[in-house]
Amino acid sequence: MPLTGFRIIDLTRVISGPFCTMMLADLGADVIKIEPPGEGDPIRKQGAGRDGMSWYFASFNRNKRSVTLDLKAPEGRVALERLIATADAVIDNFRPGVLARLGFDEARLQEIRPGIVTCSITGFGSTGPYSDRPAFDFIAQAMSGFMSVNGGPGDPPLRTGLPISDLVSGLYGALGVCAALVRRERAQTGEHVEISLTNSMVSLLAYVASHYFATGEVLPKTGNDHPIASPYGLFRTRDGQIAIAPSDNTFFGRLMDALELPALKTHPDFVSNDLRVLHRARLTALVEEQLGHSDSEYWITKLNAAGVPCGPIYDMHGVFSDPQILAQEMVMNVPTKDHGEVRMLGFPIKLSQTPCAVRRPPPDMGEHTGALLAELGYSPAELEQLRKLRVTAA
Amino acid sequence: MPLTGFRIIDLTRVISGPFCTMMLADLGADVIKIEPPGEGDPIRKQGAGRDGMSWYFASFNRNKRSVTLDLKAPEGRVALERLIATADAVIDNFRPGVLARLGFDEARLQEIRPGIVTCSITGFGSTGPYSDRPAFDFIAQAMSGFMSVNGGPGDPPLRTGLPISDLVSGLYGALGVCAALVRRERAQTGEHVEISLTNSMVSLLAYVASHYFATGEVLPKTGNDHPIASPYGLFRTRDGQIAIAPSDNTFFGRLMDALELPALKTHPDFVSNDLRVLHRARLTALVEEQLGHSDSEYWITKLNAAGVPCGPIYDMHGVFSDPQILAQEMVMNVPTKDHGEVRMLGFPIKLSQTPCAVRRPPPDMGEHTGALLAELGYSPAELEQLRKLRVTAA
Repeated sequence: MPLTGFRIIDLTRVISGPFCTMMLADLGADVIKIEPPGEGDPIRKQGAGRDGMSWYFASFNRNKRSVTLDLKAPEGRVALERLIATADAVIDNFRPGVLARLGFDEARLQEIRPGIVTCSITGFGSTGPYSDRPAFDFIAQAMSGFMSVNGGPGDPPLRTGLPISDLVSGLYGALGVCAALVRRERAQTGEHVEISLTNSMVSLLAYVASHYFATGEVLPKTGNDHPIASPYGLFRTRDGQIAIAPSDNTFFGRLMDALELPALKTHPDFVSNDLRVLHRARLTALVEEQLGHSDSEYWITKLNAAGVPCGPIYDMHGVFSDPQILAQEMVMNVPTKDHGEVRMLGFPIKLSQTPCAVRRPPPDMGEHTGALLAELGYSPAELEQLRKLRVTAA
Repeated sequence: MPLTGFRIIDLTRVISGPFCTMMLADLGADVIKIEPPGEGDPIRKQGAGRDGMSWYFASFNRNKRSVTLDLKAPEGRVALERLIATADAVIDNFRPGVLARLGFDEARLQEIRPGIVTCSITGFGSTGPYSDRPAFDFIAQAMSGFMSVNGGPGDPPLRTGLPISDLVSGLYGALGVCAALVRRERAQTGEHVEISLTNSMVSLLAYVASHYFATGEVLPKTGNDHPIASPYGLFRTRDGQIAIAPSDNTFFGRLMDALELPALKTHPDFVSNDLRVLHRARLTALVEEQLGHSDSEYWITKLNAAGVPCGPIYDMHGVFSDPQILAQEMVMNVPTKDHGEVRMLGFPIKLSQTPCAVRRPPPDMGEHTGALLAELGYSPAELEQLRKLRVTAA
């Protein structure tokens, strides 16, 4: 697999960091998740689950091993140091300064393992006036401008239901680490990768930002309507709604033909996209009049066959019973030893020669502490001592 | 830089692919953007701009060179083949089958350049019942379930204002290519990376998916309120609104102390998160009563100092005048030769030793055709002939 042979020490918790390290683990990396004994990663206790395992935790922690270490105890820090000495990368999502206060600043990490790649995911970055602030996904959604572009005309700011800042920053982290590992292969030297939740969301502002930069104007929100394309959005059929997104004259022509409204292609009010945006309401009414004669399924098949992008609007039932999403293996059942079969999302990156696979189910807390510390040379007596000192057990 | 020395042939257009290749270019790759003569990437004509350049186009195409080639002409395909023979990766976002019909299926690409990494970004993937369907961001937002979790209780499905499916699939593409390049360094062999807009969005469903898998239930939408935490959301101050996101009892305690409501910490109705969710409206009223005594700025400073995640809700004006976002260099002014200074978003991945930088401004259409084909050995007479045949010029 692409990252086989790379060992990553994972000091992250909750979502952004664990998502980052899971992406790298899915690509083959040997990810060792360090958890505080007793409590563990807080997400273990969150969300719905079955048979003693949170499926929310499971969805961010497949393909990892878990080692419990109390990093407040000197013996815990020694064990971490010995683990880091065997690793290619260390990833954390502490607040800036926390890892250094534990005795692992960048210089020390490079000393323990010369050329190691390090990565920190924080709320705002390690420099600047807010670097010390605590941050969560919701704050990054608010401060990045994301909430200001989410909603309909005149609506108040709205977060999205997914922890999008955590997830996107996790993805940037995985990309940054992967790129630094490429360099390390060639230059035998590592570097520090820094990702912030807020920067990650700002980087997605796309045309909203470029429009603002070029004109000084803030584009109004348009909900499901496209600001500069029509027809576009959700349209009523006989039994529901479908999403249609023709983007230019070619697609518009195909749509009109499929709806048996060919005359509208040359109608003076609809002949250009600008005119169609101007007469959006009238055009939508004409489109919906035709769509109302048949059911959604009929139109989805017919419009796609005509080359018009069109699809259903799914909730979770719809998504996870859709034949395409199932054919793409975006749902997996992962057997575990003690927690039955865990259902989770599949792999979004499809590799032809070395496909992502579940090599390990989500780990129990500290499941691999003994085995990994023994590999480092800890004797059974030393391991027993660490347990007694509550360094590896609560 | 991490990807210095890697050449990528970029056959992509509009957003998802160009965002993918820009991420790789920002990390040091030599990205050569192939555009059809005359029309070019359609995004060149979209969005606001200045001095003859679309700033929307600019925001996805820095650090690339542009070569115009008519791939419908045999001479254009020969030139592409000679370019691919010098490359480490080829990336496209055509519909499945289009690249093969142009004469560049996977086997042929591996023949032209053994061990090359290839990547396709499509709407639904290259297999399964919908693989032939056209797709746009909006359809992926609808079919992935994303729109079903965006909004308040009882609201209809809502797309978000950013082309999030395009952007996230571009990010997955960059990660997949980068991982495949790591493997190629070690194994001297390439592979095909496949990314779909719909799979990418499905992969972000997080707790909404894990809850559904574990219980069979679809979680109701909660707008700005967190489904399982209170207080959490937007709160009125004397002069506006702020976002507050305390996630557990510790943060709740800090918030109550900072609001001078310490008695609520032990109030029987608010003593656990479950109770606070149950009594959310009453708690929000008590919080807002205190917040109403001062302005947003006061509270943002005070609550952050107390360790409570809290921030303003920004529109574009706010984002791009915020001192932290400016300190993080998330806005850049890029000089160009003929189009003045272009303002664009900064780099979300911060590398300590080899920071991302603008090595090249966004290219004019075909700006580097002559230089790059000359490097391949085309003589001035041959280049003139290609121009006359309209292979490299409209």
